[in-house]
Amino acid sequence: MRRRNLGDLLRHVHLGGALSRSELADRMGLNRSTIMALTAELSAAGLVGEELPGDTGRAGRPSLVVRPQRDRAHVLAFDVRVDRLVAARVGLGGEILDRREAVRHRAGADLEDVVGVLAGFGRELRRGARPGSVCVGVGAAYCGMIRPDDGTVRYGPYVGWVDQAFGVELGSRLNLPVLVGNEAHLGALAERDRGVGRGFDNLIYLHGDVGVGGGIIVNGQLLGGYGGYGGEVGHMVVNPDGRPCACGSRGCLEAEVGEPALMEHAGRYGEMIGRDAVRAVVDAADRGDVMAQEALAHVGNWLGLGVATLVNVFNPEMVVFGGILREIYLGSAAQVRSRIATGTLRATREQVRLRTTALGDDATLMGAAELAFAQVLADPLEALSRVAPAPFGG
Amino acid sequence: MRRRNLGDLLRHVHLGGALSRSELADRMGLNRSTIMALTAELSAAGLVGEELPGDTGRAGRPSLVVRPQRDRAHVLAFDVRVDRLVAARVGLGGEILDRREAVRHRAGADLEDVVGVLAGFGRELRRGARPGSVCVGVGAAYCGMIRPDDGTVRYGPYVGWVDQAFGVELGSRLNLPVLVGNEAHLGALAERDRGVGRGFDNLIYLHGDVGVGGGIIVNGQLLGGYGGYGGEVGHMVVNPDGRPCACGSRGCLEAEVGEPALMEHAGRYGEMIGRDAVRAVVDAADRGDVMAQEALAHVGNWLGLGVATLVNVFNPEMVVFGGILREIYLGSAAQVRSRIATGTLRATREQVRLRTTALGDDATLMGAAELAFAQVLADPLEALSRVAPAPFGG
Repeated sequence: MRRRNLGDLLRHVHLGGALSRSELADRMGLNRSTIMALTAELSAAGLVGEELPGDTGRAGRPSLVVRPQRDRAHVLAFDVRVDRLVAARVGLGGEILDRREAVRHRAGADLEDVVGVLAGFGRELRRGARPGSVCVGVGAAYCGMIRPDDGTVRYGPYVGWVDQAFGVELGSRLNLPVLVGNEAHLGALAERDRGVGRGFDNLIYLHGDVGVGGGIIVNGQLLGGYGGYGGEVGHMVVNPDGRPCACGSRGCLEAEVGEPALMEHAGRYGEMIGRDAVRAVVDAADRGDVMAQEALAHVGNWLGLGVATLVNVFNPEMVVFGGILREIYLGSAAQVRSRIATGTLRATREQVRLRTTALGDDATLMGAAELAFAQVLADPLEALSRVAPAPFGG
Repeated sequence: MRRRNLGDLLRHVHLGGALSRSELADRMGLNRSTIMALTAELSAAGLVGEELPGDTGRAGRPSLVVRPQRDRAHVLAFDVRVDRLVAARVGLGGEILDRREAVRHRAGADLEDVVGVLAGFGRELRRGARPGSVCVGVGAAYCGMIRPDDGTVRYGPYVGWVDQAFGVELGSRLNLPVLVGNEAHLGALAERDRGVGRGFDNLIYLHGDVGVGGGIIVNGQLLGGYGGYGGEVGHMVVNPDGRPCACGSRGCLEAEVGEPALMEHAGRYGEMIGRDAVRAVVDAADRGDVMAQEALAHVGNWLGLGVATLVNVFNPEMVVFGGILREIYLGSAAQVRSRIATGTLRATREQVRLRTTALGDDATLMGAAELAFAQVLADPLEALSRVAPAPFGG
């Protein structure tokens, strides 16, 4: 119980920033003396600090605020995108303290290469950490289907991976256990914890890149399904006579609204790739380029159809567009909304709001960081004792 | 804690039938003396009885078995289908002790009429109960979207109801509170508790009638969504250029695979209605009627496409076909399976099995009964004390 309370308190300041003891007492339903005792324990371990707040504008002695110590504990977070590898050191509290990125070519990236680059980034990032800061976990987001137990990539179509032991390999190179999650799953958790979905328990995060993934939060929990492969909304068939999909089917949502579809409709296939290419189409449409406008309208129509289906099935409070779907949604909101207006039942339509990511391109990376923080937030002192000597030579 | 244990024990025998004390101890993780004490309390209240088992084939003194007393506590269960009204008295343990049915015409059934018929059935069923049997709850399944708080029908397309206070009206006529649920939601719970889905925590129950509904169990919990309207799989668009749907959209799953679509493709529209009509098409196909075979193949193709989408999104262990979808699936399994084979990702496809309802036409009725039993299973003695004098004049 004490351990759980320690973890809960740390989670509150990790996600909520500096909070006064009285706010913590309210949020956790505990009395102030318990909060003081818990804070003292976490403070002795170096995980939180207490300080006077800024000017509160009120008379009287202000309550001390409890703040996470970003330099005491950090995690390594990795994000394997189709066109880019990203790595970051993220401090307790969620701040990105340092980062590395590498652009990569789509085809032929084998496991060895990817793991090599990421492990190199990881070593650099750890070397840059302040003395006394310990690494409490490693998380990675991957653009494909992940087996949760061991971080194996079951299927990563655009990278060309099938059944690759990504988590195990990266872990052995870093000499640390690595937790791996699907990028859209992790993006959903990050938006719920730190982004536009804060406080929403029924949320769908749609992540677009070359493909389209979904992270679906049902009643506060990520929808994993039986094997952890739930949320593959990119392979909903929205257009049975539509474009062939990398999965072997036809007219899947990702075939109709992913980057290649947009670039082809816009007459720009092959010019550039990645998020910048998508942004260039949206910019062109804003400047009056009719072909770009039509491409966005076309893609927005299929996106709206897919979202309408998801709204009917899940009755969510919020749908969040992330990755390139952020740009595509912003460039085709009229089509998306029109499809939802005609394709959903009123009782559910009334309850849903459409939003774009608040974490931008870092949503998936931040989700990977949260995966890595999970252990220290579950049982802070135990997790710390496993990775670090007693704090401050104690 | 004791109350919860009493409820748990009662739930085990309610769902599992007669169980020996030692089986109960195993399943509940309690020692035998606790089981004996709990059983004694429930037995004093008349809710369970103890008896010697049938021949166990083993030597030695057999363990007494604990059995639910179906005549001590019952519920009223109602099922409002498009073409039929069903009512039943269901005893503790789940046996249907008595039932009433009325065929009804589709159009023009107003709330007053439906509630009048059901309330009349309810009174008859209660009069037929044995002396000493008490009614511990009333549940109703309805073929439309239900607001969980008060049992209001938000949308019941084929009955023509919008925002009708069904639960409140039926309750005031019966002078008992009535819990109302969507038919497919309740069918899903019934199949999970008593049917083919027993023990499966990630299950999709697809219920067909004139329309198509879904009850989706995610990680052991019914997917309600934010407002309780989740699972409206009938309005997934599977065929964007397809048949108009009663909801105002086009090509919804229910427009493509519901009873009207099948009857029209089979050249039999208007001949008969309801499940018998669908069965007649399947029978004709079995006898070699080419038009009936083609109609089933056509409808099965869209059904398979819809199921493939759901498998990708939910990664379920099982999909259960109920209502007329049972017949349609049995008559078009090749098309359904073929669509799933080509339209789902391997990791999810490997984990799903397709099944038909084990509870037949009563799945939704049984789900309504379970809704009504929920209170007595949560806190048996308290629930009993509210509806009945002390047992046996005590």
